Amino acid sequence: MKEKTYRKILIIHGPNLNLLGEREPNVYGSETMQTINQLAIDTSKANNIQCDCFQSNHEGEIIDKLHEARLEYDGIVLNAGAYTHYSYAIRDAISAIKIPVVEVHMSNIHKREEFRHNSVISPVCAGQICGFGSNSYVLGVLALAKLISD
Amino acid sequence: MKEKTYRKILIIHGPNLNLLGEREPNVYGSETMQTINQLAIDTSKANNIQCDCFQSNHEGEIIDKLHEARLEYDGIVLNAGAYTHYSYAIRDAISAIKIPVVEVHMSNIHKREEFRHNSVISPVCAGQICGFGSNSYVLGVLALAKLISD
Amino acid sequence: MKEKTYRKILIIHGPNLNLLGEREPNVYGSETMQTINQLAIDTSKANNIQCDCFQSNHEGEIIDKLHEARLEYDGIVLNAGAYTHYSYAIRDAISAIKIPVVEVHMSNIHKREEFRHNSVISPVCAGQICGFGSNSYVLGVLALAKLISD
Amino acid sequence: MKEKTYRKILIIHGPNLNLLGEREPNVYGSETMQTINQLAIDTSKANNIQCDCFQSNHEGEIIDKLHEARLEYDGIVLNAGAYTHYSYAIRDAISAIKIPVVEVHMSNIHKREEFRHNSVISPVCAGQICGFGSNSYVLGVLALAKLISD
Amino acid sequence: MKEKTYRKILIIHGPNLNLLGEREPNVYGSETMQTINQLAIDTSKANNIQCDCFQSNHEGEIIDKLHEARLEYDGIVLNAGAYTHYSYAIRDAISAIKIPVVEVHMSNIHKREEFRHNSVISPVCAGQICGFGSNSYVLGVLALAKLISD
Amino acid sequence: MKEKTYRKILIIHGPNLNLLGEREPNVYGSETMQTINQLAIDTSKANNIQCDCFQSNHEGEIIDKLHEARLEYDGIVLNAGAYTHYSYAIRDAISAIKIPVVEVHMSNIHKREEFRHNSVISPVCAGQICGFGSNSYVLGVLALAKLISD
Amino acid sequence: MKEKTYRKILIIHGPNLNLLGEREPNVYGSETMQTINQLAIDTSKANNIQCDCFQSNHEGEIIDKLHEARLEYDGIVLNAGAYTHYSYAIRDAISAIKIPVVEVHMSNIHKREEFRHNSVISPVCAGQICGFGSNSYVLGVLALAKLISD
Amino acid sequence: MKEKTYRKILIIHGPNLNLLGEREPNVYGSETMQTINQLAIDTSKANNIQCDCFQSNHEGEIIDKLHEARLEYDGIVLNAGAYTHYSYAIRDAISAIKIPVVEVHMSNIHKREEFRHNSVISPVCAGQICGFGSNSYVLGVLALAKLISD
Amino acid sequence: MKEKTYRKILIIHGPNLNLLGEREPNVYGSETMQTINQLAIDTSKANNIQCDCFQSNHEGEIIDKLHEARLEYDGIVLNAGAYTHYSYAIRDAISAIKIPVVEVHMSNIHKREEFRHNSVISPVCAGQICGFGSNSYVLGVLALAKLISD
Amino acid sequence: MKEKTYRKILIIHGPNLNLLGEREPNVYGSETMQTINQLAIDTSKANNIQCDCFQSNHEGEIIDKLHEARLEYDGIVLNAGAYTHYSYAIRDAISAIKIPVVEVHMSNIHKREEFRHNSVISPVCAGQICGFGSNSYVLGVLALAKLISD
Amino acid sequence: MKEKTYRKILIIHGPNLNLLGEREPNVYGSETMQTINQLAIDTSKANNIQCDCFQSNHEGEIIDKLHEARLEYDGIVLNAGAYTHYSYAIRDAISAIKIPVVEVHMSNIHKREEFRHNSVISPVCAGQICGFGSNSYVLGVLALAKLISD
Amino acid sequence: MKEKTYRKILIIHGPNLNLLGEREPNVYGSETMQTINQLAIDTSKANNIQCDCFQSNHEGEIIDKLHEARLEYDGIVLNAGAYTHYSYAIRDAISAIKIPVVEVHMSNIHKREEFRHNSVISPVCAGQICGFGSNSYVLGVLALAKLISD
Repeated sequence: MKEKTYRKILIIHGPNLNLLGEREPNVYGSETMQTINQLAIDTSKANNIQCDCFQSNHEGEIIDKLHEARLEYDGIVLNAGAYTHYSYAIRDAISAIKIPVVEVHMSNIHKREEFRHNSVISPVCAGQICGFGSNSYVLGVLALAKLISD
Repeated sequence: MKEKTYRKILIIHGPNLNLLGEREPNVYGSETMQTINQLAIDTSKANNIQCDCFQSNHEGEIIDKLHEARLEYDGIVLNAGAYTHYSYAIRDAISAIKIPVVEVHMSNIHKREEFRHNSVISPVCAGQICGFGSNSYVLGVLALAKLISD
Repeated sequence: MKEKTYRKILIIHGPNLNLLGEREPNVYGSETMQTINQLAIDTSKANNIQCDCFQSNHEGEIIDKLHEARLEYDGIVLNAGAYTHYSYAIRDAISAIKIPVVEVHMSNIHKREEFRHNSVISPVCAGQICGFGSNSYVLGVLALAKLISD
Repeated sequence: MKEKTYRKILIIHGPNLNLLGEREPNVYGSETMQTINQLAIDTSKANNIQCDCFQSNHEGEIIDKLHEARLEYDGIVLNAGAYTHYSYAIRDAISAIKIPVVEVHMSNIHKREEFRHNSVISPVCAGQICGFGSNSYVLGVLALAKLISD
Repeated sequence: MKEKTYRKILIIHGPNLNLLGEREPNVYGSETMQTINQLAIDTSKANNIQCDCFQSNHEGEIIDKLHEARLEYDGIVLNAGAYTHYSYAIRDAISAIKIPVVEVHMSNIHKREEFRHNSVISPVCAGQICGFGSNSYVLGVLALAKLISD
Repeated sequence: MKEKTYRKILIIHGPNLNLLGEREPNVYGSETMQTINQLAIDTSKANNIQCDCFQSNHEGEIIDKLHEARLEYDGIVLNAGAYTHYSYAIRDAISAIKIPVVEVHMSNIHKREEFRHNSVISPVCAGQICGFGSNSYVLGVLALAKLISD
Repeated sequence: MKEKTYRKILIIHGPNLNLLGEREPNVYGSETMQTINQLAIDTSKANNIQCDCFQSNHEGEIIDKLHEARLEYDGIVLNAGAYTHYSYAIRDAISAIKIPVVEVHMSNIHKREEFRHNSVISPVCAGQICGFGSNSYVLGVLALAKLISD
Repeated sequence: MKEKTYRKILIIHGPNLNLLGEREPNVYGSETMQTINQLAIDTSKANNIQCDCFQSNHEGEIIDKLHEARLEYDGIVLNAGAYTHYSYAIRDAISAIKIPVVEVHMSNIHKREEFRHNSVISPVCAGQICGFGSNSYVLGVLALAKLISD
Repeated sequence: MKEKTYRKILIIHGPNLNLLGEREPNVYGSETMQTINQLAIDTSKANNIQCDCFQSNHEGEIIDKLHEARLEYDGIVLNAGAYTHYSYAIRDAISAIKIPVVEVHMSNIHKREEFRHNSVISPVCAGQICGFGSNSYVLGVLALAKLISD
Repeated sequence: MKEKTYRKILIIHGPNLNLLGEREPNVYGSETMQTINQLAIDTSKANNIQCDCFQSNHEGEIIDKLHEARLEYDGIVLNAGAYTHYSYAIRDAISAIKIPVVEVHMSNIHKREEFRHNSVISPVCAGQICGFGSNSYVLGVLALAKLISD
Repeated sequence: MKEKTYRKILIIHGPNLNLLGEREPNVYGSETMQTINQLAIDTSKANNIQCDCFQSNHEGEIIDKLHEARLEYDGIVLNAGAYTHYSYAIRDAISAIKIPVVEVHMSNIHKREEFRHNSVISPVCAGQICGFGSNSYVLGVLALAKLISD
Repeated sequence: MKEKTYRKILIIHGPNLNLLGEREPNVYGSETMQTINQLAIDTSKANNIQCDCFQSNHEGEIIDKLHEARLEYDGIVLNAGAYTHYSYAIRDAISAIKIPVVEVHMSNIHKREEFRHNSVISPVCAGQICGFGSNSYVLGVLALAKLISD
């Protein structure tokens, strides 16, 4: 389906992640989204992968991006933010595309409010990594690197 | 409310339906959205109805379109995709407009995952047709044709 | 299994549908079961299909009829009435036979009492059509006609 | 209550079991009800018990038969089919008669659909045997033979 | 709808009530159904009402009888037995006819097993009387006598 | 425990029943509590029973009254109003005294709001009568008369 | 129903509100009930309304007061304290009277313990105001002033 | 807050405990409330504590007493009877006062009816002791003695 | 964070509120959104506050607006429409910004369909006002005025 | 996987079954585990099968034994005792080994406490036999004998 | 069953209690298990009882110990730690032995996480004491002393 | 607490993981536990960390090991197998020790059976990694390496 000589991955950040660093730092830490993106890009480069980044607060734009990505990227690291817990539309988009999606969260969603314990997208993702702050993204890139190299 | 000499209906496709034909063909078949639209237009024409088609992955755009449609169309055939299962905002939009909405699904949502069994928009739609693949749309157009001719 | 030169379908009406026209006309309309049967027969004939009709208030008789039908008919349009919501025995009968069954309801069961929202037979039927009054049967016949011609 | 010089048991098959052999053979095997009845009769004879067999798709007929049986038989092996999961009327009939009833199922109902996990008749039966195909009946006869000999 | 010079009521006994007197006497007492019918007839006569009695273990026959009764009787006293707890088909039959139905139970269903606490027919009956043994029927006749005289 | 030559019963009305006649007449009718008390007294007298009446909006006073009544009355007809649905303290008071308590309701609580479907006092009452308006009290007195004469 | 030349409202405080100022000041603030009453009276006066105040820890007394109020006041501002979450008797009292009741809470009950999220009286009140400390009462008076002037 | 030279505790008995000895002796034993009070007073005296006792069937009076007690006593042993299971108003009263409250029950509430398994006051009490009959009070006094001496 | 010499607030209207006046007037009244905005602006001006208004049917646009508002406004009055009941993304946006948000609803959401009883944004808003029609906005502005002046 | 000339089965008894005969004899009968083992061995011998027996109160030891058994035995009869209801670790052990496991219980677990109705190991066992006292083991051996001979 | 001239009790500590003093001291206090054991031994001695102590993190060892104890001790004070909330095997062991078991907890389990609110062993223990830190054991010994002296 | 010059971590494998490679290879892959341990050791060494490995099918042994580890290791990578879903005792052990624990699973537990969706140990672990086969361990070691270096 994809004909290219190098591997590419996409980081997708969902709603409110643009405020990282400023937003509830006791939960999400003080690093900005830009810092995290740079970490992901560096980790990718160290694994000979090109890494692009995207953020949107709009469910529909995330779906559109997932659709586009299916033709351009080898895999996706997705932090769907609060959409994680109810967006069956994003879930369907992940099912509809054939490239692997790794679900990441900065906080350990299982020790927070009840509604955050359930991820409606987990069943269609390759795996889930949560609770390691910005390092969740780094681990997500490494997990994806392994998946697309197998 | 509407003054016009011919009847018009609108087909609204929700999220991920733009990928029909490519997306999970074992569930949704191999026909594209374009093929289905043509089927709906042909069925409408055979019933002296003009039929327009619209697709969006954005909940907000579907709501906007439903609002606009109340002044331009006599009825709507709606496949809200995954929004069917949680978009109370689309439900309210259907309640807010006065033209009939027929809910259709290609797959039989009642034999799939638990979360797909419940449609939050059903209680405000005229009726529901599901499980007949692209023919669900044809039957939806016929159901609507009868409703707006009564 | 069936060797014959023409196609035949069966309409099965479940409990209390013999009182149509008289029973809660605000919910079920004022057409009698006989009128509806004629509509189904006419629709069938227009599609070169022979259509027979059957009604019973007895769960066991409906099961017996489904068993018999498997050897005589190409498909069934079934309005199981209130049995829809709890008759796992009818569900098993549908699973046991190999011809397609289309589930129909005159009212939109999803906007009525909570107990009517769930159909225990849906997961084993080809599809569901509800909310269009007597037209639900007409659409059911059309849906079935397509299924048995494919 | 019963005055007779030999022991008699009754096998009761509930809805859809008349189609055994033909019905979903991957679940229920390819043996017919007749074959199973013969197995039960043979097992009974080997234990000096007379065994009769009965099948009905009608809940009411099963209740009637349970009532009659209380005067003629020493015990019952019952496969209530799908009625197992909701027929409180059959449950009451079992409570109302004084002879032991052994509940059997061919499939392991605990590994199938959720609705099959619960048996409303279990609490009033002597015991339950499920998952061994036609052998469930043979084991049921043996269990009953022991109960009525104690 | 009914043109007659005297008032008539019908007692309907559901499944297993034919075994009254013999069945679980600690729960249902030692009076037979015949004794109870006589009590109901006597109470009716004392109120210038003709009273007929009917029993069936078959859900379908109870529905058929309710349908017939709508043209012949002024009201019904119904002990639906275990069907009380799940027969939405009987519920629909009660809704479909226009004469009042009084629900009676010999035992206090609210102090027995959990599944007996809910009556699916209560919402469509005039009222409920339970817990007074055979006197529940007498009180049911008196309740109905008042309803049909108002 | 009680030594007296005549039988006495007590009617207890719970909260808001003092407003009968004025309060939601579409639900509770237009008869006042005084009219209903007179009906109960007349019915009692016709059965050679003395009948006293009591009303309170206070849960504690109803409990106090139930305690007192155990030494003075042979039985109680209780309409606990909304306390029916949550007063486990009244339930315990009924359990603590040894005279029979008949639960009555004017409306059919089973066809009203969900929270009214459950009575926490039913399991400790002799029986329940509901849905017959003021006649529920008359039937309650008759039910109690039979219980205390047995 | 009420014939008087000026408008009067009643503030009702439920259980434990007499301890305001001393009780859990981190939740309820440090203002006493007397201070709050003065705020309510001042706001009323500024709107040409007479305002009386009442407090009780007794469910029954609150019901009695609601009954009395129906003849003397044009509307009520009610903080039912913990009774909010289970007193169906107070709910029925509100339904029984015809004057509007505005529900207020000092704390935002929706961000506290689960049991406080549900108000059983909300469905029969005109509206709900919560989370603004003593200002909830001021806003409640203003809301009521508008309701009784319309 | 309290300035006095000796320690004082209060025993509060909730609804129906005034009938101890007579009420369901198989559950609550044959000792009267007076006997239990004496046991509590003796245990207190042996620990140099003054002990007063109070009983009421009225939720509001128990709340009033808890309020008064905050200024007079060093701690409370509370058997709230059935109010244990639903009185959020008593719970709030306990939270509102600052002295420790020890929850006691004579019966083991965890082996009785489902509704008795949950105590809504436990989360705001120091601890819970149940199942030891009158000795629960003795242990409660000892537990409290330790708490107020720490 | 904000340096300005006057106070500013923002009114945010969620999905379908642009149809106010035309949409289900029995629920939402006949005033248009423009009329309501003017009321809010007038109330604000009377309190020396500048008030801007915004409406969108798009969840993402509401989140974007909340983000922008954190730097420009002192507080927000938010009617999130149907998003109130499931948009955890809007909830997170409210948590992420530091200015107070007052939740308002025109209808009393607690007396409508079950799904409207729960607000997922309440736990992160300052308070909730509902049920007073257009006056809910006026009260919301007043509540916010007090919050930002404290 | 296994190379041997005779067939071998293993009986595994879970926690507390070592106390059989002494433990709650009204539920479990008065036969000891040794007697039951002898019954199983005799039944096996009659079917030309070697039968070993094992008991442990330790979940981990049962898992270890299941692992060992996969190389030595042709099948297992397992009474997991109370672990039946929560040991997903034993369930996984059964899934992990390839020999058939027949689940047995002496009591009819479906008529006992609610928590005993669910077996977490059923879905991975061949079938379930319960309610026949020591005969459950005999039937279990017979069921297994048939399974390993097929 | 037991022949001896003095009374003996056993303290059983479940999982993680060996870390007392070091483990979450804000929840469990700073006393070690050894200190607590000494308190229990002292309290026992003061009541002329010999007290032994046992701790294990292994569910199976606790069951083994309970079995052994039935022949050696007159009663048991059990803190089953987290096994309290799911070990039906320990529950069955308690049922199987005939000596009384008093359940104790250092923390008030009813005010902690939801999963700690339910004790699966309570229904088979004599009573429960929780929330008093190390004093819970002292009270447990006293409660047991009374039980075994009765 | 720990005084040493190099960092050490421990891998703990729970029940049934000793069968990796042989057990359900479609779910768990064909690598053995030994291979995975080597991967973990290699990854650790590359990060200058010493890594030990441990496996047990016994809940109690895992708890014992967690206790021991608190004095010897800087952190733990834990795959608790099926104990993940119900061992509150392991959860408490994790809470009781102060070193970080990273939860790993080879399969994506969120797309398997319902009972595997919930991890009772997640709320006390640093984070969770699942779905990446043996690579989950590698990522777990990397996550832990970062945690203990911060």
